[in-house]
Amino acid sequence: MTMYPIVPGHEITGIITKVGKKVENFKVGDRAGIGCLAASCLECDFCKSSQENYCDQLQFTYNGIFWDGSITYGGYSKMIVADYRYVVHVPESLPMDAAAPLLCAGVTVFTPLKNHNLIESPKKNIGVVGLGGLGHVAVKFGKAFGHHVTVISTSPSKEKEARDRLGADDFIVSSNPKQMEMGKRTLDFILDTVSADHSLGPILELLKVNGTLVIVGASSKPLELPSFPLIFGKIMRLSSPQT
Amino acid sequence: MTMYPIVPGHEITGIITKVGKKVENFKVGDRAGIGCLAASCLECDFCKSSQENYCDQLQFTYNGIFWDGSITYGGYSKMIVADYRYVVHVPESLPMDAAAPLLCAGVTVFTPLKNHNLIESPKKNIGVVGLGGLGHVAVKFGKAFGHHVTVISTSPSKEKEARDRLGADDFIVSSNPKQMEMGKRTLDFILDTVSADHSLGPILELLKVNGTLVIVGASSKPLELPSFPLIFGKIMRLSSPQT
Repeated sequence: MTMYPIVPGHEITGIITKVGKKVENFKVGDRAGIGCLAASCLECDFCKSSQENYCDQLQFTYNGIFWDGSITYGGYSKMIVADYRYVVHVPESLPMDAAAPLLCAGVTVFTPLKNHNLIESPKKNIGVVGLGGLGHVAVKFGKAFGHHVTVISTSPSKEKEARDRLGADDFIVSSNPKQMEMGKRTLDFILDTVSADHSLGPILELLKVNGTLVIVGASSKPLELPSFPLIFGKIMRLSSPQT
Repeated sequence: MTMYPIVPGHEITGIITKVGKKVENFKVGDRAGIGCLAASCLECDFCKSSQENYCDQLQFTYNGIFWDGSITYGGYSKMIVADYRYVVHVPESLPMDAAAPLLCAGVTVFTPLKNHNLIESPKKNIGVVGLGGLGHVAVKFGKAFGHHVTVISTSPSKEKEARDRLGADDFIVSSNPKQMEMGKRTLDFILDTVSADHSLGPILELLKVNGTLVIVGASSKPLELPSFPLIFGKIMRLSSPQT
Protein backbone atom coordinates (compact mmCIF):
# COMPACT_ATOMS: atom_id res chain seq x y z
CA MET A 1 0.00 0.00 0.00
CA THR A 2 3.01 2.30 0.09
CA MET A 3 3.35 5.01 -2.57
CA TYR A 4 7.02 5.92 -3.14
CA PRO A 5 8.75 8.27 -2.54
CA ILE A 6 7.40 8.42 1.01
CA VAL A 7 8.09 10.73 3.94
CA PRO A 8 6.54 9.30 7.12
CA GLY A 9 5.74 11.08 10.40
CA HIS A 10 2.27 11.67 11.79
CA GLU A 11 2.76 13.35 15.20
CA ILE A 12 3.77 16.75 13.93
CA THR A 13 4.46 20.03 15.72
CA GLY A 14 5.91 23.26 14.36
CA ILE A 15 5.60 27.01 13.86
CA ILE A 16 3.19 28.38 11.28
CA THR A 17 5.00 30.27 8.46
CA LYS A 18 2.09 31.00 6.13
CA VAL A 19 -1.71 31.03 6.38
CA GLY A 20 -4.35 30.85 3.66
CA LYS A 21 -6.60 33.80 2.94
CA LYS A 22 -9.70 32.25 4.49
CA VAL A 23 -8.02 30.90 7.61
CA GLU A 24 -9.15 32.80 10.69
CA ASN A 25 -8.04 30.78 13.68
CA PHE A 26 -4.28 30.65 13.02
CA LYS A 27 -1.65 33.30 12.29
CA VAL A 28 2.00 33.28 11.31
CA GLY A 29 4.17 32.43 14.31
CA ASP A 30 1.56 30.28 16.07
CA ARG A 31 2.68 27.01 17.65
CA ALA A 32 0.69 24.27 15.96
CA GLY A 33 0.22 20.51 15.71
CA ILE A 34 -1.07 18.07 13.09
CA GLY A 35 -2.12 14.49 13.76
CA CYS A 36 -2.80 11.54 11.47
CA LEU A 37 -5.54 13.10 9.38
CA ALA A 38 -4.94 15.21 6.29
CA ALA A 39 -8.33 15.18 4.60
CA SER A 40 -11.82 13.67 4.67
CA CYS A 41 -15.12 14.26 2.85
CA LEU A 42 -16.30 16.98 5.29
CA GLU A 43 -19.91 16.10 4.47
CA CYS A 44 -20.74 12.76 6.08
CA ASP A 45 -22.22 12.33 9.56
CA PHE A 46 -18.79 11.42 10.93
CA CYS A 47 -17.11 14.53 9.53
CA LYS A 48 -19.94 16.67 10.88
CA SER A 49 -19.59 15.21 14.38
CA SER A 50 -15.80 15.48 14.78
CA GLN A 51 -15.36 11.78 14.03
CA GLU A 52 -13.54 12.21 10.74
CA ASN A 53 -11.47 9.15 11.62
CA TYR A 54 -14.46 7.03 10.53
CA CYS A 55 -15.02 8.88 7.25
CA ASP A 56 -14.93 6.64 4.18
CA GLN A 57 -12.76 9.14 2.34
CA LEU A 58 -10.26 9.66 5.13
CA GLN A 59 -6.70 10.43 4.02
CA PHE A 60 -3.67 10.26 6.29
CA THR A 61 -0.94 12.83 6.89
CA TYR A 62 1.47 10.71 4.89
CA ASN A 63 0.97 8.16 2.15
CA GLY A 64 -2.47 9.65 1.56
CA ILE A 65 -3.99 11.48 -1.39
CA PHE A 66 -4.89 15.09 -0.67
CA TRP A 67 -7.90 16.91 -2.14
CA ASP A 68 -5.74 18.32 -4.97
CA GLY A 69 -4.56 14.84 -5.95
CA SER A 70 -1.06 15.20 -4.51
CA ILE A 71 0.46 12.56 -2.26
CA THR A 72 0.78 13.64 1.38
CA TYR A 73 4.22 13.72 3.01
CA GLY A 74 4.45 13.56 6.79
CA GLY A 75 6.26 15.06 9.74
CA TYR A 76 9.81 14.29 8.64
CA SER A 77 9.35 16.86 5.84
CA LYS A 78 10.98 20.26 6.35
CA MET A 79 7.59 21.90 6.01
CA ILE A 80 4.00 20.77 5.60
CA VAL A 81 0.84 22.27 4.12
CA ALA A 82 -2.33 21.30 5.98
CA ASP A 83 -5.97 22.24 6.00
CA TYR A 84 -6.86 24.34 9.07
CA ARG A 85 -9.54 21.82 10.06
CA TYR A 86 -6.86 19.27 10.94
CA VAL A 87 -4.51 21.65 12.76
CA VAL A 88 -4.55 22.30 16.52
CA HIS A 89 -2.95 24.98 18.68
CA VAL A 90 -0.06 23.94 20.95
CA PRO A 91 -0.06 26.04 24.13
CA GLU A 92 3.13 27.87 25.21
CA SER A 93 3.24 25.76 28.38
CA LEU A 94 3.71 22.55 26.43
CA PRO A 95 7.14 21.80 24.89
CA MET A 96 6.92 20.92 21.19
CA ASP A 97 8.57 17.50 21.64
CA ALA A 98 6.19 16.58 24.48
CA ALA A 99 3.16 17.80 22.53
CA ALA A 100 3.88 15.76 19.40
CA PRO A 101 3.05 12.27 20.75
CA LEU A 102 -0.29 13.54 22.01
CA LEU A 103 -1.35 13.93 18.38
CA CYS A 104 -1.59 10.19 17.79
CA ALA A 105 -0.61 8.13 20.86
CA GLY A 106 -2.25 10.70 23.12
CA VAL A 107 -5.64 10.91 21.41
CA THR A 108 -5.64 7.15 20.90
CA VAL A 109 -5.68 6.50 24.65
CA PHE A 110 -7.49 9.70 25.65
CA THR A 111 -10.55 9.02 23.50
CA PRO A 112 -11.52 5.68 25.10
CA LEU A 113 -11.18 7.24 28.55
CA LYS A 114 -13.42 10.09 27.45
CA ASN A 115 -15.95 7.85 25.69
CA HIS A 116 -16.32 5.68 28.79
CA ASN A 117 -16.83 8.60 31.17
CA LEU A 118 -13.52 8.04 32.92
CA ILE A 119 -12.46 11.66 32.88
CA GLU A 120 -15.24 12.88 35.13
CA SER A 121 -15.62 9.70 37.21
CA PRO A 122 -12.39 9.06 39.14
CA LYS A 123 -11.38 6.18 41.44
CA LYS A 124 -11.98 3.37 38.99
CA ASN A 125 -9.57 0.44 38.71
CA ILE A 126 -7.96 0.83 35.32
CA GLY A 127 -5.55 -1.58 33.66
CA VAL A 128 -3.10 -0.64 30.94
CA VAL A 129 -1.70 -3.55 28.94
CA GLY A 130 1.70 -2.78 27.44
CA LEU A 131 4.00 0.06 28.47
CA GLY A 132 5.17 1.46 25.14
CA GLY A 133 4.33 4.57 23.15
CA LEU A 134 0.62 4.30 23.87
CA GLY A 135 0.75 2.67 27.27
CA HIS A 136 2.95 5.18 29.05
CA VAL A 137 0.64 8.03 28.02
CA ALA A 138 -2.38 5.99 29.15
CA VAL A 139 -0.85 5.54 32.61
CA LYS A 140 -0.23 9.27 32.94
CA PHE A 141 -3.78 10.12 31.82
CA GLY A 142 -5.24 7.47 34.13
CA LYS A 143 -3.41 8.92 37.12
CA ALA A 144 -4.19 12.52 36.10
CA PHE A 145 -7.90 11.66 36.02
CA GLY A 146 -7.73 10.17 39.53
CA HIS A 147 -7.83 6.43 38.89
CA HIS A 148 -6.06 3.46 40.40
CA VAL A 149 -3.84 2.31 37.53
CA THR A 150 -2.42 -1.18 37.10
CA VAL A 151 0.12 -1.88 34.37
CA ILE A 152 0.04 -5.36 32.83
CA SER A 153 3.28 -6.14 31.03
CA THR A 154 5.45 -9.03 29.87
CA SER A 155 8.54 -7.13 31.07
CA PRO A 156 9.36 -7.17 34.81
CA SER A 157 12.13 -4.68 34.00
CA LYS A 158 9.52 -1.98 33.34
CA GLU A 159 8.04 -2.06 36.84
CA LYS A 160 10.35 0.60 38.28
CA GLU A 161 9.61 3.08 35.49
CA ALA A 162 5.89 2.35 35.65
CA ARG A 163 5.69 3.03 39.37
CA ASP A 164 8.37 5.68 39.99
CA ARG A 165 8.27 7.75 36.83
CA LEU A 166 4.70 7.31 35.60
CA GLY A 167 2.94 6.85 38.92
CA ALA A 168 1.31 3.44 38.34
CA ASP A 169 -0.22 1.95 41.50
CA ASP A 170 0.23 -1.70 40.59
CA PHE A 171 2.21 -3.81 38.17
CA ILE A 172 1.31 -7.30 36.99
CA VAL A 173 3.79 -9.42 35.04
CA SER A 174 1.53 -11.23 32.62
CA SER A 175 3.75 -14.34 32.57
CA ASN A 176 3.47 -14.69 36.36
CA PRO A 177 0.51 -17.01 37.07
CA LYS A 178 0.31 -16.00 40.73
CA GLN A 179 0.09 -12.29 39.95
CA MET A 180 -2.46 -12.93 37.19
CA GLU A 181 -4.53 -15.08 39.56
CA MET A 182 -4.44 -12.35 42.22
CA GLY A 183 -5.61 -9.81 39.64
CA LYS A 184 -8.69 -11.74 38.49
CA ARG A 185 -11.91 -9.74 38.33
CA THR A 186 -10.31 -6.64 39.85
CA LEU A 187 -10.40 -4.12 36.98
CA ASP A 188 -13.28 -1.95 35.78
CA PHE A 189 -11.64 -0.93 32.53
CA ILE A 190 -8.67 -2.19 30.57
CA LEU A 191 -6.89 -0.45 27.73
CA ASP A 192 -4.94 -2.97 25.66
CA THR A 193 -2.20 -1.11 23.80
CA VAL A 194 -0.18 -4.11 22.63
CA SER A 195 0.26 -4.44 18.87
CA ALA A 196 2.11 -7.77 19.07
CA ASP A 197 0.21 -11.01 18.59
CA HIS A 198 -1.42 -12.08 21.87
CA SER A 199 -4.44 -13.74 23.44
CA LEU A 200 -7.15 -11.63 25.04
CA GLY A 201 -8.16 -14.52 27.34
CA PRO A 202 -5.85 -13.80 30.29
CA ILE A 203 -6.62 -10.08 30.02
CA LEU A 204 -10.38 -10.66 30.07
CA GLU A 205 -9.97 -12.64 33.28
CA LEU A 206 -8.65 -9.51 35.01
CA LEU A 207 -11.90 -7.64 34.24
CA LYS A 208 -14.77 -7.42 36.64
CA VAL A 209 -18.07 -8.79 35.28
CA ASN A 210 -19.48 -6.14 32.94
CA GLY A 211 -16.08 -4.47 32.81
CA THR A 212 -14.80 -2.92 29.59
CA LEU A 213 -11.82 -3.92 27.46
CA VAL A 214 -10.78 -1.43 24.80
CA ILE A 215 -8.32 -2.58 22.13
CA VAL A 216 -6.17 0.14 20.59
CA GLY A 217 -3.09 -1.84 19.60
CA ALA A 218 -3.04 -2.23 15.84
CA SER A 219 -1.88 -5.81 15.51
CA SER A 220 -1.32 -6.95 11.94
CA LYS A 221 -2.48 -10.45 12.94
CA PRO A 222 -5.90 -11.21 14.43
CA LEU A 223 -5.92 -11.41 18.23
CA GLU A 224 -7.05 -14.57 19.97
CA LEU A 225 -10.43 -14.11 21.63
CA PRO A 226 -11.63 -17.09 23.66
CA SER A 227 -15.38 -16.87 24.20
CA PHE A 228 -15.62 -18.56 27.59
CA PRO A 229 -14.27 -15.64 29.62
CA LEU A 230 -16.94 -13.51 27.95
CA ILE A 231 -19.68 -15.95 28.83
CA PHE A 232 -18.80 -17.01 32.35
CA GLY A 233 -16.42 -14.26 33.38
CA LYS A 234 -13.80 -16.94 33.88
CA ILE A 235 -11.84 -19.45 31.83
CA MET A 236 -13.31 -22.92 31.75
CA ARG A 237 -11.29 -25.73 30.29
CA LEU A 238 -13.23 -27.91 27.89
CA SER A 239 -12.29 -31.49 27.34
CA SER A 240 -12.82 -33.10 23.99
CA PRO A 241 -11.33 -36.08 22.12
CA GLN A 242 -9.07 -33.67 20.25
CA THR A 243 -7.45 -31.94 23.23
CA MET B 1 -14.00 -32.60 33.45
CA THR B 2 -16.71 -35.24 33.13
CA MET B 3 -17.74 -37.17 36.24
CA TYR B 4 -19.14 -40.61 35.33
CA PRO B 5 -21.83 -41.87 35.38
CA ILE B 6 -23.38 -38.81 33.74
CA VAL B 7 -26.94 -37.93 32.72
CA PRO B 8 -26.94 -34.78 30.55
CA GLY B 9 -29.83 -32.44 29.74
CA HIS B 10 -30.12 -28.83 30.85
CA GLU B 11 -33.33 -27.50 29.25
CA ILE B 12 -35.78 -29.27 31.49
CA THR B 13 -39.57 -29.10 31.77
CA GLY B 14 -41.96 -31.27 33.73
CA ILE B 15 -44.73 -31.55 36.29
CA ILE B 16 -43.97 -31.11 39.97
CA THR B 17 -44.62 -34.28 41.98
CA LYS B 18 -43.34 -33.20 45.40
CA VAL B 19 -42.50 -29.93 47.13
CA GLY B 20 -40.34 -29.23 50.16
CA LYS B 21 -41.84 -27.98 53.41
CA LYS B 22 -40.53 -24.42 53.03
CA VAL B 23 -41.39 -23.98 49.36
CA GLU B 24 -44.20 -21.49 48.92
CA ASN B 25 -44.30 -20.61 45.23
CA PHE B 26 -44.82 -24.10 43.75
CA LYS B 27 -47.32 -26.85 44.39
CA VAL B 28 -47.77 -30.46 43.24
CA GLY B 29 -49.11 -30.52 39.67
CA ASP B 30 -47.52 -27.23 38.60
CA ARG B 31 -45.87 -27.05 35.20
CA ALA B 32 -42.24 -26.11 35.80
CA GLY B 33 -38.87 -25.60 34.12
CA ILE B 34 -35.23 -25.79 35.17
CA GLY B 35 -32.30 -24.29 33.26
CA CYS B 36 -28.55 -24.79 33.49
CA LEU B 37 -28.10 -23.78 37.12
CA ALA B 38 -28.47 -26.15 40.05
CA ALA B 39 -26.74 -24.25 42.86
CA SER B 40 -24.63 -21.21 43.71
CA CYS B 41 -23.37 -19.53 46.89
CA LEU B 42 -26.54 -17.39 47.34
CA GLU B 43 -24.47 -14.79 49.20
CA CYS B 44 -22.28 -12.95 46.68
CA ASP B 45 -23.27 -9.77 44.84
CA PHE B 46 -24.08 -11.80 41.72
CA CYS B 47 -26.39 -14.20 43.55
CA LYS B 48 -28.09 -11.27 45.25
CA SER B 49 -28.72 -9.51 41.92
CA SER B 50 -30.12 -12.45 39.91
CA GLN B 51 -26.80 -12.95 38.14
CA GLU B 52 -25.99 -16.33 39.70
CA ASN B 53 -24.42 -17.32 36.38
CA TYR B 54 -21.35 -15.28 37.40
CA CYS B 55 -21.12 -16.78 40.91
CA ASP B 56 -17.76 -18.39 41.67
CA GLN B 57 -19.47 -21.39 43.22
CA LEU B 58 -21.93 -21.95 40.40
CA GLN B 59 -22.94 -25.59 39.80
CA PHE B 60 -24.70 -26.82 36.69
CA THR B 61 -27.81 -28.95 36.36
CA TYR B 62 -25.68 -31.90 35.33
CA ASN B 63 -22.07 -32.81 36.02
CA GLY B 64 -22.14 -30.38 38.93
CA ILE B 65 -21.82 -30.88 42.67
CA PHE B 66 -24.93 -30.01 44.63
CA TRP B 67 -24.97 -28.47 48.12
CA ASP B 68 -25.28 -31.93 49.73
CA GLY B 69 -22.19 -33.18 47.86
CA SER B 70 -24.12 -35.32 45.38
CA ILE B 71 -23.44 -35.15 41.66
CA THR B 72 -26.21 -33.49 39.65
CA TYR B 73 -27.96 -35.44 36.89
CA GLY B 74 -29.75 -33.55 34.14
CA GLY B 75 -32.94 -33.54 32.13
CA TYR B 76 -32.68 -37.02 30.69
CA SER B 77 -33.29 -38.39 34.19
CA LYS B 78 -36.78 -39.71 34.94
CA MET B 79 -37.12 -37.19 37.74
CA ILE B 80 -35.07 -34.37 39.17
CA VAL B 81 -34.77 -32.66 42.56
CA ALA B 82 -34.07 -28.93 42.33
CA ASP B 83 -33.93 -25.94 44.65
CA TYR B 84 -36.96 -23.70 44.22
CA ARG B 85 -34.66 -20.72 43.46
CA TYR B 86 -33.67 -22.27 40.14
CA VAL B 87 -37.15 -23.39 39.08
CA VAL B 88 -39.55 -21.34 36.93
CA HIS B 89 -43.24 -21.65 36.17
CA VAL B 90 -44.25 -22.72 32.64
CA PRO B 91 -47.57 -21.13 31.67
CA GLU B 92 -50.43 -23.29 30.38
CA SER B 93 -50.28 -21.50 27.03
CA LEU B 94 -46.75 -22.73 26.33
CA PRO B 95 -46.26 -26.38 25.27
CA MET B 96 -43.65 -28.18 27.36
CA ASP B 97 -41.46 -29.03 24.37
CA ALA B 98 -41.46 -25.44 23.13
CA ALA B 99 -40.76 -24.08 26.59
CA ALA B 100 -37.71 -26.26 27.22
CA PRO B 101 -35.25 -24.57 24.79
CA LEU B 102 -36.08 -21.18 26.30
CA LEU B 103 -34.35 -22.32 29.48
CA CYS B 104 -30.88 -22.18 27.92
CA ALA B 105 -30.94 -21.13 24.24
CA GLY B 106 -33.77 -18.72 24.96
CA VAL B 107 -32.24 -16.87 27.91
CA THR B 108 -28.86 -16.87 26.17
CA VAL B 109 -30.17 -14.71 23.33
CA PHE B 110 -32.88 -12.89 25.32
CA THR B 111 -30.46 -11.50 27.91
CA PRO B 112 -28.23 -9.55 25.47
CA LEU B 113 -31.34 -8.05 23.85
CA LYS B 114 -32.59 -7.02 27.30
CA ASN B 115 -29.21 -5.72 28.48
CA HIS B 116 -28.85 -3.52 25.39
CA ASN B 117 -32.33 -2.01 25.67
CA LEU B 118 -33.57 -3.77 22.55
CA ILE B 119 -36.83 -4.95 24.06
CA GLU B 120 -38.26 -1.49 24.60
CA SER B 121 -36.55 0.22 21.61
CA PRO B 122 -37.80 -1.34 18.37
CA LYS B 123 -36.80 -0.69 14.74
CA LYS B 124 -33.11 -1.33 15.13
CA ASN B 125 -31.15 -3.25 12.50
CA ILE B 126 -30.20 -6.49 14.19
CA GLY B 127 -27.98 -9.21 12.78
CA VAL B 128 -28.03 -12.83 13.89
CA VAL B 129 -24.96 -14.87 12.92
CA GLY B 130 -25.72 -18.57 12.64
CA LEU B 131 -29.17 -20.14 12.40
CA GLY B 132 -28.98 -23.06 14.81
CA GLY B 133 -30.34 -23.70 18.28
CA LEU B 134 -29.55 -20.20 19.50
CA GLY B 135 -29.93 -18.29 16.24
CA HIS B 136 -33.45 -19.34 15.36
CA VAL B 137 -34.71 -18.22 18.77
CA ALA B 138 -32.82 -14.93 18.39
CA VAL B 139 -34.56 -14.24 15.06
CA LYS B 140 -37.97 -14.87 16.60
CA PHE B 141 -37.22 -12.62 19.57
CA GLY B 142 -35.81 -9.92 17.30
CA LYS B 143 -38.95 -9.90 15.19
CA ALA B 144 -41.25 -10.09 18.23
CA PHE B 145 -39.56 -6.99 19.66
CA GLY B 146 -40.10 -5.07 16.41
CA HIS B 147 -36.64 -5.06 14.83
CA HIS B 148 -35.38 -5.46 11.28
CA VAL B 149 -33.57 -8.79 11.48
CA THR B 150 -30.81 -9.94 9.14
CA VAL B 151 -29.52 -13.50 9.31
CA ILE B 152 -25.84 -14.03 8.45
CA SER B 153 -25.13 -17.66 7.61
CA THR B 154 -22.69 -19.86 5.71
CA SER B 155 -25.66 -21.91 4.42
CA PRO B 156 -27.69 -20.53 1.49
CA SER B 157 -30.06 -23.45 2.03
CA LYS B 158 -31.31 -21.87 5.26
CA GLU B 159 -32.62 -18.70 3.62
CA LYS B 160 -36.11 -20.02 2.97
CA GLU B 161 -36.60 -21.16 6.55
CA ALA B 162 -35.13 -17.92 7.90
CA ARG B 163 -37.50 -15.76 5.89
CA ASP B 164 -40.68 -17.83 5.60
CA ARG B 165 -40.81 -19.67 8.90
CA LEU B 166 -38.93 -17.35 11.28
CA GLY B 167 -39.76 -14.00 9.66
CA ALA B 168 -36.22 -12.71 8.98
CA ASP B 169 -36.17 -9.57 6.81
CA ASP B 170 -32.80 -10.17 5.19
CA PHE B 171 -30.34 -12.99 4.65
CA ILE B 172 -26.63 -12.62 3.96
CA VAL B 173 -24.54 -15.59 2.87
CA SER B 174 -21.24 -14.91 4.60
CA SER B 175 -19.21 -16.54 1.81
CA ASN B 176 -20.74 -14.17 -0.78
CA PRO B 177 -18.41 -11.14 -1.05
CA LYS B 178 -21.02 -9.04 -2.85
CA GLN B 179 -23.66 -9.57 -0.18
CA MET B 180 -21.10 -8.93 2.58
CA GLU B 181 -19.97 -5.74 0.85
CA MET B 182 -23.59 -4.56 0.54
CA GLY B 183 -24.11 -5.21 4.24
CA LYS B 184 -21.16 -3.15 5.49
CA ARG B 185 -21.91 -0.72 8.32
CA THR B 186 -25.65 -1.46 8.20
CA LEU B 187 -26.29 -3.17 11.56
CA ASP B 188 -26.78 -1.60 14.99
CA PHE B 189 -26.41 -4.83 16.90
CA ILE B 190 -25.14 -8.30 16.05
CA LEU B 191 -25.64 -11.48 18.02
CA ASP B 192 -23.00 -14.04 17.04
CA THR B 193 -24.32 -17.48 17.96
CA VAL B 194 -21.75 -19.57 16.08
CA SER B 195 -19.74 -22.00 18.19
CA ALA B 196 -17.54 -23.16 15.29
CA ASP B 197 -14.12 -21.60 14.76
CA HIS B 198 -14.45 -18.35 12.78
CA SER B 199 -13.09 -14.84 12.33
CA LEU B 200 -14.95 -11.87 13.76
CA GLY B 201 -13.44 -9.54 11.13
CA PRO B 202 -16.11 -9.88 8.41
CA ILE B 203 -18.85 -9.67 11.05
CA LEU B 204 -17.44 -6.48 12.56
CA GLU B 205 -17.50 -4.89 9.11
CA LEU B 206 -21.29 -5.28 9.04
CA LEU B 207 -21.62 -3.17 12.18
CA LYS B 208 -22.28 0.55 12.14
CA VAL B 209 -19.64 2.64 13.91
CA ASN B 210 -20.29 2.30 17.65
CA GLY B 211 -22.48 -0.73 16.98
CA THR B 212 -22.49 -3.68 19.34
CA LEU B 213 -21.37 -7.26 18.73
CA VAL B 214 -22.37 -9.80 21.37
CA ILE B 215 -20.73 -13.22 21.30
CA VAL B 216 -22.76 -16.06 22.77
CA GLY B 217 -21.41 -19.02 20.80
CA ALA B 218 -19.23 -21.11 23.07
CA SER B 219 -16.38 -21.98 20.74
CA SER B 220 -13.79 -24.32 22.21
CA LYS B 221 -11.09 -22.54 20.18
CA PRO B 222 -10.33 -18.81 20.45
CA LEU B 223 -12.06 -16.68 17.83
CA GLU B 224 -10.00 -14.53 15.48
CA LEU B 225 -10.36 -10.85 16.30
CA PRO B 226 -8.59 -8.50 13.89
CA SER B 227 -8.10 -5.11 15.53
CA PHE B 228 -8.33 -2.90 12.45
CA PRO B 229 -12.12 -3.13 12.04
CA LEU B 230 -12.36 -2.00 15.67
CA ILE B 231 -10.08 0.95 15.08
CA PHE B 232 -11.20 2.23 11.70
CA GLY B 233 -14.57 0.64 11.35
CA LYS B 234 -13.27 -1.08 8.27
CA ILE B 235 -10.64 -3.62 7.25
CA MET B 236 -7.33 -2.15 6.15
CA ARG B 237 -4.74 -4.38 4.62
CA LEU B 238 -1.26 -3.88 6.04
CA SER B 239 1.80 -4.68 4.04
CA SER B 240 4.96 -5.79 5.76
CA PRO B 241 8.05 -7.78 4.75
CA GLN B 242 6.58 -10.85 6.44
CA THR B 243 3.25 -10.96 4.64
